[in-house]
Amino acid sequence: MSEGKPITCIAAVAYEAGKPLTVEEIVVDPPKAHEVRIKVEYTAVCHTDAYTLSGVDPEGAFPSILGHEGAGVVESVGEGVTNVKPGDHVIALYTAECKECKFCKSGKTNLCGSVRATQGKGVMPDGTSRFHNKKGEDLLHFMGCSTFSQYTVVADVSVVAIDPKAPLDKTCLLGCGVTTGYGAAVKTADVQKGDTVAVFGAGTVGLSVVQGAHVRGASKIIVVDINDEKKQWALEFGATDFVNPSKDLKDGETIVEKLVEMTDGGLDFTFDCTGNTDVMRSALEACHKGWGQSIIIGVAAAGKEISTRPFQLVTGRVWKGSAFGGIKGRSEMGGLVSDYMDGKLKVDEFITHRRGFTDINSAFEDLHHGDCLRTVLDLSK
Amino acid sequence: MSEGKPITCIAAVAYEAGKPLTVEEIVVDPPKAHEVRIKVEYTAVCHTDAYTLSGVDPEGAFPSILGHEGAGVVESVGEGVTNVKPGDHVIALYTAECKECKFCKSGKTNLCGSVRATQGKGVMPDGTSRFHNKKGEDLLHFMGCSTFSQYTVVADVSVVAIDPKAPLDKTCLLGCGVTTGYGAAVKTADVQKGDTVAVFGAGTVGLSVVQGAHVRGASKIIVVDINDEKKQWALEFGATDFVNPSKDLKDGETIVEKLVEMTDGGLDFTFDCTGNTDVMRSALEACHKGWGQSIIIGVAAAGKEISTRPFQLVTGRVWKGSAFGGIKGRSEMGGLVSDYMDGKLKVDEFITHRRGFTDINSAFEDLHHGDCLRTVLDLSK
Repeated sequence: MSEGKPITCIAAVAYEAGKPLTVEEIVVDPPKAHEVRIKVEYTAVCHTDAYTLSGVDPEGAFPSILGHEGAGVVESVGEGVTNVKPGDHVIALYTAECKECKFCKSGKTNLCGSVRATQGKGVMPDGTSRFHNKKGEDLLHFMGCSTFSQYTVVADVSVVAIDPKAPLDKTCLLGCGVTTGYGAAVKTADVQKGDTVAVFGAGTVGLSVVQGAHVRGASKIIVVDINDEKKQWALEFGATDFVNPSKDLKDGETIVEKLVEMTDGGLDFTFDCTGNTDVMRSALEACHKGWGQSIIIGVAAAGKEISTRPFQLVTGRVWKGSAFGGIKGRSEMGGLVSDYMDGKLKVDEFITHRRGFTDINSAFEDLHHGDCLRTVLDLSK
Repeated sequence: MSEGKPITCIAAVAYEAGKPLTVEEIVVDPPKAHEVRIKVEYTAVCHTDAYTLSGVDPEGAFPSILGHEGAGVVESVGEGVTNVKPGDHVIALYTAECKECKFCKSGKTNLCGSVRATQGKGVMPDGTSRFHNKKGEDLLHFMGCSTFSQYTVVADVSVVAIDPKAPLDKTCLLGCGVTTGYGAAVKTADVQKGDTVAVFGAGTVGLSVVQGAHVRGASKIIVVDINDEKKQWALEFGATDFVNPSKDLKDGETIVEKLVEMTDGGLDFTFDCTGNTDVMRSALEACHKGWGQSIIIGVAAAGKEISTRPFQLVTGRVWKGSAFGGIKGRSEMGGLVSDYMDGKLKVDEFITHRRGFTDINSAFEDLHHGDCLRTVLDLSK
């Protein structure tokens, strides 16, 4: 029994911005009160991990254990934990849900405030870390998850138990990308039958938006991406049109003009899944006057700002955003997993690469290739 | 009977940007098909008239007859007009409602598209003007209303008949300012009991937002204005707090920080009624994370843009706008007039000055004084 004792295991440590991760043995402390120690089985690599590792994220801190799209099995729980128990299959939640704070109780947002401050600092709610390297140095947590370790410790509000029949090597993707895009379409935007939709950026998040819009019966789903390799995927997930702005525009035509022309006045909903602030502006301005809504999902580079003429809003366009698809992880993950099990939600299709955990630096390379949506890492290898 | 014949009357003509209006005799043609000739009884002067007259509006064109906040009596109607008849008391609508276009039928917006293109060019839907000066020159229409004339011609979709018992020297204000602010609160934002609200700019529009929020039972209504003279009015219309950012902030404190502190995290709704794009940014950023909505009402100067970090939206704030308070003029004006008649909607309180029509240039001066909300002009004098 490992309960109550430190566990020595393999982790991929981010010691320095812009450098590869160091795969090494670390020590993971037992969970304190209201904490959960998870044996991570599978994790994927998301652009947010790469963004932080690159060093351009001003809030990125090192040394740390990255990773936030992971699933595993509860190894042990600290005092007072009632929502999961050892042996439970779980998904780590970078957006916590305490069900008690002002945000959770509002009924208007999934942005729980309970562990936000400490999560942002890379520590557990008591202000300390559960990770140490062999030299005895503390290693920071990341996004409340740190799934790039065979064992991790998370707050009890940051984990949800799921159907044990669901395969963890697939459901790990519900920890970020798939849920973020799908939720943005079906929850934040609440796309309705017949609506027209444009999605900028056809990565895992963008294609998940496409999937959500398709499930809702959108009449037109236009995917905009500068990489033609994404076209086939876009169509498979339900897109009706694909526009490559680097080659499908007439001389002097803007992407906004193209989209407005394709939709007789603009779109009911547009989604930015690129993180590029110029694209965000185009996404807003391609919305239909009077009611079009543009939803920002992508994470912009530090210091970048969005701009537009206020007239765009006064004439009825709405600019909003979505984090984790507006999904409340503990209350709503079960529904997504069951939709997946029932064949209503595609997840397997996003897994283009699989690697052993010690090959994690190659998984970061995969992200830069147009043929990669998600690389899933098997933590046992 | 003047029906079918040109009418010679007094109008205030804007011949040149930045110059006073010229009060002179003009000729007003009879209404063509689907047009209505109105004897304008009262008109107020709004900042939008002053903005266009100043010449900074790039779409402003001269010579023209300004004025869009007016009420009067139908003198005659052209062929095919069924919604009003001679003798009806009416309010001119700068936001038309045809009930047939894509916008009107959408159920999502009040921005009717029927006469938009020609209205923007200062002509009637057939592309010509009904106004001529004594030299025979055409004078342009303005915002589909041109109420700075004893007689005007408007499209039938741009006019609504109201209860003849309602005093036109008051209800003229429902043609723009009061409706714009009140509607932004009760319709665009749909403020609910207990919500917290901040209103930037305490002119007629801002105070009408205050009134709307108060009617809805907002728990806190903070008015932000750099003119202390507005405090008393703000409180009379229902504000609970008044902040003058030029003197009520601590050293180094921003208005956003002040408002967030006053509301334990930010506001449920904020409204910009200033047209200043920096204020619009503050209004957005003073919204509560997770659900706060900021509504832009003010008209920004040409070329000015709004900006913010996309993180503000990704964390749940919503940026939108409102034109004419989201109110559909022909369908909903009757309700506002009856609320006014029943004492539920304050209108008289906005009238701080009254002048004869020929004194109109002084009414433009009034606008620049802190003691003026609205100057109502009597067209018979």
